Amino acid sequence: MKLYGIASSTCTGRVLLSLFEKEVEDFELVIVNVRKGEGKKPEYLRLQPFGLIPLLEDGDVTLYESRAIIRYIANKYEGQGTALYGKDIKDRAKVDQWLEVEGQNFNVAIRSSLGVVSKPPIDEALLTETLGKLGKVLDIYEDRLSNTQYLAGDFFSLADLSHMTTGWKLFDKYKQGSILFEGRPHVKAWWENISSRPAFKKLLEMI
Amino acid sequence: MKLYGIASSTCTGRVLLSLFEKEVEDFELVIVNVRKGEGKKPEYLRLQPFGLIPLLEDGDVTLYESRAIIRYIANKYEGQGTALYGKDIKDRAKVDQWLEVEGQNFNVAIRSSLGVVSKPPIDEALLTETLGKLGKVLDIYEDRLSNTQYLAGDFFSLADLSHMTTGWKLFDKYKQGSILFEGRPHVKAWWENISSRPAFKKLLEMI
Repeated sequence: MKLYGIASSTCTGRVLLSLFEKEVEDFELVIVNVRKGEGKKPEYLRLQPFGLIPLLEDGDVTLYESRAIIRYIANKYEGQGTALYGKDIKDRAKVDQWLEVEGQNFNVAIRSSLGVVSKPPIDEALLTETLGKLGKVLDIYEDRLSNTQYLAGDFFSLADLSHMTTGWKLFDKYKQGSILFEGRPHVKAWWENISSRPAFKKLLEMI
Repeated sequence: MKLYGIASSTCTGRVLLSLFEKEVEDFELVIVNVRKGEGKKPEYLRLQPFGLIPLLEDGDVTLYESRAIIRYIANKYEGQGTALYGKDIKDRAKVDQWLEVEGQNFNVAIRSSLGVVSKPPIDEALLTETLGKLGKVLDIYEDRLSNTQYLAGDFFSLADLSHMTTGWKLFDKYKQGSILFEGRPHVKAWWENISSRPAFKKLLEMI
């Protein structure tokens, strides 16, 4: 199995996390650095026509889109490591729901904030505005996490995992995002819990 | 089973299509019209905190996000109607990949175009710009569909289905989108094929 990408990319990191949670070791990380234009090389575009990372090659399966790849990893290695899709189709449904919320709501909002904090000098007014939008999404998370330990229920899943690489950048690497934990104790506890997982520490060592 | 929403909504329509393809008849459509503010009523927000449609209630399963609901329908009724996830986990992986491409690329681009054509007088320069962006996505579809009959492979799946309600608005209801078929014969043939399915005709009768 070959994973094309780079560990510091939030989307490649999402896939690495799923491999670590599943205790999969028989894969090779092939470095593709899109910032150096390596995504636009013809031989790569033949495999990934959008020119983006990550890309997985597993025998005759060639797959892109990080949230599709982590689903595939969860399905292929269903019987080993963490049960990332839960135990039945009801669990699976809630995992898919929160993966969609992550992709369509959380991800859009957190990327706006990351766009501001990663390019100093920081526009404080714009940062407040973008953090405000992310905060509205996290208000819904706070309510959810006051009822269940994790997003999809009382089990760690793909849904939680999918938040970790972007969340780490805003909450831990750039500290500005941690202000969003104020008044949201369940989100804070959830973040401290999931970011202490061994698979996540293993990823951080690669970045 | 209760589906909250309205048939003319592209997201509710996506779920209705999945029910029709699966030949599921034991459900009730409960009208929630977000344009009339019905999504913001407290009793609805308790079920769907974002105040959006659709929402599915199936016994103790309460589910939102249309692409999560159609996955649940495909899993729950795996043995009847159209095999919307294909036959194995490799097919499933490609379905998930193209569902992500639809949600993250096609949907964003087509909604920009729909925003222009649905609010006359039409800003022709903006329409050209938004259709240009959608065209770039469809160039990748054209390449894919010159190799396989459907997006995920040679089988109709959730991935194709997920494009139909937004596609119908831009290609058929508002005619402006059909210009994108020029020079993209495989996209045109794919659209004519999937939009002639009985499940889709059944949905159009409700709109």
